[in-house]
Amino acid sequence: MELKTLKLNIEAGGPYIVVLNDEDANELGVISSDRLFVRHEDLHAICIINISSGSKPGQLGVYKEVAEKLELEEEDLVYVEPARRPESLDFIREKVNGERLVSWKIARIVGDVVERHLSDIEIAAFVTALHVYGVSMEEVEALSRAMIWSGKTLDFEKEIVLDKHSIGGVPGDKTTLVAVPIVAAAGYTIPKSSSRAITSPAGTADRMEALCPVDLEYEEIREVVKEVGACIVWGGSIDLAPADDLFIRVEYPLSIDPLLLPSIMSKKKAMGSTHVVVDIPVGINAKIKTITEGDQLANDFIELGSRFDMNIECALTEGDQPIAYNIGPILEAKEALQTLNGEGPHELVNKATNIAGILLEMTGNPNGREMAQELIKSGKAMEKMREIIGAQGGNQEVRIEDLVPGDKTYDVQAPRDGRVLYINNRDLVQIARAAGTPSSKKSGLKLFAKLGDAIKEGETIFRVYSEKTSKLENAVKLLEDLYPMEIGKKVGESMLMKRIGKPTVPSREFILER
Amino acid sequence: MELKTLKLNIEAGGPYIVVLNDEDANELGVISSDRLFVRHEDLHAICIINISSGSKPGQLGVYKEVAEKLELEEEDLVYVEPARRPESLDFIREKVNGERLVSWKIARIVGDVVERHLSDIEIAAFVTALHVYGVSMEEVEALSRAMIWSGKTLDFEKEIVLDKHSIGGVPGDKTTLVAVPIVAAAGYTIPKSSSRAITSPAGTADRMEALCPVDLEYEEIREVVKEVGACIVWGGSIDLAPADDLFIRVEYPLSIDPLLLPSIMSKKKAMGSTHVVVDIPVGINAKIKTITEGDQLANDFIELGSRFDMNIECALTEGDQPIAYNIGPILEAKEALQTLNGEGPHELVNKATNIAGILLEMTGNPNGREMAQELIKSGKAMEKMREIIGAQGGNQEVRIEDLVPGDKTYDVQAPRDGRVLYINNRDLVQIARAAGTPSSKKSGLKLFAKLGDAIKEGETIFRVYSEKTSKLENAVKLLEDLYPMEIGKKVGESMLMKRIGKPTVPSREFILER
Repeated sequence: MELKTLKLNIEAGGPYIVVLNDEDANELGVISSDRLFVRHEDLHAICIINISSGSKPGQLGVYKEVAEKLELEEEDLVYVEPARRPESLDFIREKVNGERLVSWKIARIVGDVVERHLSDIEIAAFVTALHVYGVSMEEVEALSRAMIWSGKTLDFEKEIVLDKHSIGGVPGDKTTLVAVPIVAAAGYTIPKSSSRAITSPAGTADRMEALCPVDLEYEEIREVVKEVGACIVWGGSIDLAPADDLFIRVEYPLSIDPLLLPSIMSKKKAMGSTHVVVDIPVGINAKIKTITEGDQLANDFIELGSRFDMNIECALTEGDQPIAYNIGPILEAKEALQTLNGEGPHELVNKATNIAGILLEMTGNPNGREMAQELIKSGKAMEKMREIIGAQGGNQEVRIEDLVPGDKTYDVQAPRDGRVLYINNRDLVQIARAAGTPSSKKSGLKLFAKLGDAIKEGETIFRVYSEKTSKLENAVKLLEDLYPMEIGKKVGESMLMKRIGKPTVPSREFILER
Repeated sequence: MELKTLKLNIEAGGPYIVVLNDEDANELGVISSDRLFVRHEDLHAICIINISSGSKPGQLGVYKEVAEKLELEEEDLVYVEPARRPESLDFIREKVNGERLVSWKIARIVGDVVERHLSDIEIAAFVTALHVYGVSMEEVEALSRAMIWSGKTLDFEKEIVLDKHSIGGVPGDKTTLVAVPIVAAAGYTIPKSSSRAITSPAGTADRMEALCPVDLEYEEIREVVKEVGACIVWGGSIDLAPADDLFIRVEYPLSIDPLLLPSIMSKKKAMGSTHVVVDIPVGINAKIKTITEGDQLANDFIELGSRFDMNIECALTEGDQPIAYNIGPILEAKEALQTLNGEGPHELVNKATNIAGILLEMTGNPNGREMAQELIKSGKAMEKMREIIGAQGGNQEVRIEDLVPGDKTYDVQAPRDGRVLYINNRDLVQIARAAGTPSSKKSGLKLFAKLGDAIKEGETIFRVYSEKTSKLENAVKLLEDLYPMEIGKKVGESMLMKRIGKPTVPSREFILER
């Protein structure tokens, strides 16, 4: 059948989609979600069919992705015929029915995700089934390999390439900005690709962006790493694992994360890493709630690493409260530089030197943590950080005191004398985001008290920073509903956590960052 | 924030979707699949956000459904702000995590499906989770009730309202066209709503449409049933269970059917049925493969019926081969009329009088099947069928010989002497659809031999009918790949069913009709 194209001038955001009129669909014997072979001159594509009574007979509505792939103009004549649905759909069905998938079938599914041959409905079913049945180590390995194949890989031409990765979930975690320069200052190669915030106030890429550009091209990254031994860049601009972004589109609304392991592994492998330390924060509000869960995940990482000839060690770390005192891109970048300058809060120093120390020990240094502390003390880590900032195109001479947050502020006071008994990370995240993070780099929060700290009634427990009055007001409005910090005389004084009289919907802020 | 609308002139086909530019999304602190409150004058809607780098800052792309709901013109100014995601999404997540849902949560999910507040991704996850974990009887009941609430219900003001339903899956099943007039001829009220084919060559609505209109309005149906005691209409035009259509959109590409029970129950209840016989075809190519599975499903139907004060009996029927000899709307309508005329093939007579007989016995008649046979013999069933056809606006005097199939035909011959050992229903379905069914009413297949029948080499085993040469050619092309009938000397002569040397993808034509 021949049809005339109608350009819809809108992206489907993923799959190749065409819109058919009822009559033409009947004539072709197809229904919504069937596939259509579409040919325009010597270009062709297999597209997913939407049927709409609104479109005209003889017309084929084409989304932007299809128009681009087939080089279509308005009212171009295209030839169409029904096409088989992709085989990968059968494999998705097998997974939905509880079967373990062999690697070639997984490769086909990931391939068809990247080629945009599968609809949101189909990818959602796959991801849901992975979540429900769990993912076997064979499947994790196959998913990782398929995700590596579908993207680019970098080669830094070094025998040893180090990396660190946090599975995320704790606000204020600027450890990377301290640990990477320490390791690089010891002479190692550590090219760090990181992510922007999705649901948090700041991702590592957002923090680093407060100091220098992070959206570097492939070749620029090679240059930077060659020059200074390290980088801290945004992974999104180098297409390391395009499948991952397409899966995240589906995982986010469902608040599930079955692809955590393959997602991380594929990105590390694509960077050519040989030794990796994985930071697994554990805490009531973190992604991992218990040490047991943390142990299991760590074992999986180590096993998976061995399948990819990669040396992996894991660190379970305290995840009950934000890391150090600052949340938000600028505030966190500042705290990281202070730490490299030897003026950091002890917990951030401790975490960063532990993480860097593990990497240093994995590569044969007898006392990694002391070595890391020494690299801070000597100023070498700070010097290295300035080199990285400069190499990525930032101001190498940046002064810590020039990093200032927004001037619209609101102080939250302790309602009574006591100690900080509980900090609700998710409430703090919501407040920081309402104040403007991550897009407004200067907004955020500064804590003046952490778990166990004594505080007097009326003293400031945290301060909200924003660049805009309206945003600050939004954050303050949220404060009325939320209760991010519990102050009490002693632990156990307030045993009742929540009173529930009728069925409620638990609030669950899902942490997707990975 | 205020934005100017850009009408996309395309239907999303389900949810309310708006398209935001990256920058505006950043400013609002939202990402794809988050929700946006959109207000235009005194109208407002909660919409699902898509983010596209292609759209302009300050602009809000709106799909047709949104434009209609908010009465939007081009470049209208609308106020937007981030909205909470619907609570039902939390309940979907609970289901995805394996929890049993209480009825109010299910009602909320179904309500949000019908209100278009949930995306395809979210509905797909829900349906997948229902399939994977199974649906408890409490959940089935809650789903049924919610689906009834969301649609219209009919009241025929009768104490007893009968109905029959087949769960489908066997081609050529025109039993309804025979059984309904029999039951109505006995003086009962039997308003039958039926479906069009989705993946089969003909649904009951398609078959009946070969004789008279089937897309009647609510009031017309009441009139018809008042006048003649029965109808056979298309359920799609009366909005009995709008949720069902939205679920089917998602179930079809995934080839899963977890909502079978609530879907059927909600439609029966919406028609006010008090006594229902459910036909469950059992066979290797049918939806239900074994008697055990059939027993379980029957028990579920009966239990569910009791929860809705509905008297349900089930009939497990032979589903190994097509019912009688004809497949395709016109051919099947003709075979049904022949059967009512006392000239039907014994298997269709047997099935229809059994089904009608069960209904007659459920309502207190001692020997239902004999009574049904008598109603055919006396001509009363045929007379009633003509009344129904006339009342629905068809030609009451239709002559059987005027029902002629397409004149493009192709005969398939037996390759050897023997008996019909195996019939592949799914292959026959594919051939019939290639020939043009269900949209071309005159296309289809006629079988000349059924399971066990003796046949000689070169004799016609079935004939393909089409209205178009091109369609006939497509069907014939398919014949080369398929092997719909196995002819052999005796059972067991051909024990090898298939030889598999390397991994293959099993072909699975999913049967969704329900």
